[in-house]
Amino acid sequence: MAANLFYAQSGGVTAVINATACGVIQAAREQGGRIGKVFAGRNGILGALHEDLIDTSFESDAAIAALRHTPGGAFGSCRYKLKGLDESRAHYERLIDVFRAHDIRYFLYNGGNDSMDTAWKVSQIAERLNYPLVCVGVPKTVDNDLVGTDNCPGFGSVAKYVAVSMMEAGLDVASMARTSTKIFVMEVMGRHAGWITAAAGLAARNAGDAPHLLLFPEIPFDQAAFMARVDACVREHQFCAIAVSEGLRGPDGKLLAESGTRDAFGHAQLGGVGQQVAELIKAQLGHKYHWALPDYLQRSGRHIASATDAAQAHALGRRAVELALEGRNAVMPAIVRTADSPYQWEIGVAQLADVANHEKMMPRDFISDDGFGITDACRRYLQPLIAGEDYPPYVDGLPAYVSLKNESVAAVLPAFGG
Amino acid sequence: MAANLFYAQSGGVTAVINATACGVIQAAREQGGRIGKVFAGRNGILGALHEDLIDTSFESDAAIAALRHTPGGAFGSCRYKLKGLDESRAHYERLIDVFRAHDIRYFLYNGGNDSMDTAWKVSQIAERLNYPLVCVGVPKTVDNDLVGTDNCPGFGSVAKYVAVSMMEAGLDVASMARTSTKIFVMEVMGRHAGWITAAAGLAARNAGDAPHLLLFPEIPFDQAAFMARVDACVREHQFCAIAVSEGLRGPDGKLLAESGTRDAFGHAQLGGVGQQVAELIKAQLGHKYHWALPDYLQRSGRHIASATDAAQAHALGRRAVELALEGRNAVMPAIVRTADSPYQWEIGVAQLADVANHEKMMPRDFISDDGFGITDACRRYLQPLIAGEDYPPYVDGLPAYVSLKNESVAAVLPAFGG
Repeated sequence: MAANLFYAQSGGVTAVINATACGVIQAAREQGGRIGKVFAGRNGILGALHEDLIDTSFESDAAIAALRHTPGGAFGSCRYKLKGLDESRAHYERLIDVFRAHDIRYFLYNGGNDSMDTAWKVSQIAERLNYPLVCVGVPKTVDNDLVGTDNCPGFGSVAKYVAVSMMEAGLDVASMARTSTKIFVMEVMGRHAGWITAAAGLAARNAGDAPHLLLFPEIPFDQAAFMARVDACVREHQFCAIAVSEGLRGPDGKLLAESGTRDAFGHAQLGGVGQQVAELIKAQLGHKYHWALPDYLQRSGRHIASATDAAQAHALGRRAVELALEGRNAVMPAIVRTADSPYQWEIGVAQLADVANHEKMMPRDFISDDGFGITDACRRYLQPLIAGEDYPPYVDGLPAYVSLKNESVAAVLPAFGG
Repeated sequence: MAANLFYAQSGGVTAVINATACGVIQAAREQGGRIGKVFAGRNGILGALHEDLIDTSFESDAAIAALRHTPGGAFGSCRYKLKGLDESRAHYERLIDVFRAHDIRYFLYNGGNDSMDTAWKVSQIAERLNYPLVCVGVPKTVDNDLVGTDNCPGFGSVAKYVAVSMMEAGLDVASMARTSTKIFVMEVMGRHAGWITAAAGLAARNAGDAPHLLLFPEIPFDQAAFMARVDACVREHQFCAIAVSEGLRGPDGKLLAESGTRDAFGHAQLGGVGQQVAELIKAQLGHKYHWALPDYLQRSGRHIASATDAAQAHALGRRAVELALEGRNAVMPAIVRTADSPYQWEIGVAQLADVANHEKMMPRDFISDDGFGITDACRRYLQPLIAGEDYPPYVDGLPAYVSLKNESVAAVLPAFGG
């Protein structure tokens, strides 16, 4: 009987993480019996720790195919970081116990930096315990901050979402600026790296197009310079559209969202950094504003997914299974860009040891000298990642997203107290 | 020489108001010379008052066709309400002066309640002044609150946007609820009427689907009942997704967004009603929340427009021109529903006098008895309005929205001081 494969989703879900799951399960089903079953962790790695496994063999081929166009995490994900090997030794050993109990010899972990670290550590503990396990990390993060890959699945679709949304809202505000809103601020995700903020900049293709200013987490907020730019922009274009990262920091290095969130009593103030920036403009320049906080809408917006992103997410899932069967332990399939225009990519292999615990920031030469825009080099990098549309099917006006049965595998071990 | 037609956009723009403009201009161009030029008001009715007219004859047929899939207001809109005929007599007379100076005999005003009132008053003043003018109102409002028409162009696309967004964000939150966000609140437009809030409810098709609770502007906020429902929902489904109208009111009739926006110093607090509701839940039940404020994204989201909505917006523009040529003064082409399923509609004619200054609220039987959901009757009404997709063309990953030349017509009158 062929050994089983365990797949888990980790961290914040994306519009295309299920496309990776789809690739994993489809590839495993096509292996002619070389892989037994694909078990998924219910709520990610917690499913392994608590022996709460989902048997994906109950899902039809059609349901698995529909995962390719379904956002969210079909098996549940979690925010749960395993610590160091010694510190969390019981947890790592428990994972191996569960894998052993269910004859799991392949571990595919679909996540970001932390998850690559976990997958790497699991591979080490398996070796120490002499348990035959192939650990493959599969990249996923809307933050696009994984090293070892040209880009991360999930990012391209958020990038497309924010660029399209900014373009559309910009047209709206431009129409009304004469008598109504002159300032529009959209707060986007990306607490440490400004990739999503940069993507909003793609919406501006001609002089005067929204967005006019970007506020990156990498560039300390220079309020005076910013206000001067907003003022000039409104004078020239009658309005000013701004994308701001949730991770914008002041010159003191503190998050604006935190520094501005207490009133005189120490009570938390509501509103995000987007509204703070808008309020500052109103206070100093007197302009009426609107602000938008797409929040989860941006990372779950499968209806406007990038075709490039969906294809890469799917292909990486498939490749991860091949790597597992090849016995390539402690690796991660990665996107390798071979040409910018026309864009070409292939799948390479990165070592988990090189990927774990690093964070890829925006190169400084992707941000304009003044700190408020993106450069041509940045556009060349980002452009292909939002290319192509990949619409889900619709029924009665709404996307036909799939819900899986998610049948549990019977537990055989004692409950885990960790 | 055939007389000219003046078209103006009014109030908040929508994803499909330009589809109406497209219909107007295409129909006028096809009239074989029965209409001279189509002039558009730059920034709506202000363009007429200030004799700031756009000559649409400079735009190519291709550019006009592209208006059908371009959001925002292509000629600019404005928030500017003319007052009563006596109070604002100089303004009304100025309009007639401008129309006379440019041989404009057809006035098409594309807007909501206020605009229908203005178009009606303009028809009255023209009659008094013995100026031959045919005034036709063309419906548009995301609020869906115009009487005399089954639904309003602009609404179906916002409805589709909020339903799709809620469905997607709901899948995201459901995936993560075990260890992360348990409460998701999306604040939607619709200050007086709960149509957009109701539309979010379309996302829930099976038991447990998001959204679980809706907060309508028509139903005073019952905090205790709401908290009990949120608590039960989290216990049953591990998470709770809520759509709340920006116009939610407390039992005292005051807008929650206003009552909660002052701190002890009288300073305005940031955050919208969406965040207020989320904070209340956090304070009382202790759950982590996320909230989203799509703001203008929802009304400009042409990328996810309803095909029904786009088709109706376009058809109403065409019909308005026909009505004008038929000399049907002080009327509005309107959507008449002839069947729910399969949905069928045709264009009827309403009298501006009947439409002006009325507001169509949600019928009470569209809201469930407990006040937190929609009924089957509501679904039957809403369902067809979000049906069908009508994607814009894309270039390099972004929608190919058109920018017009918007060439000015030379002014011939003295400046207007009003």
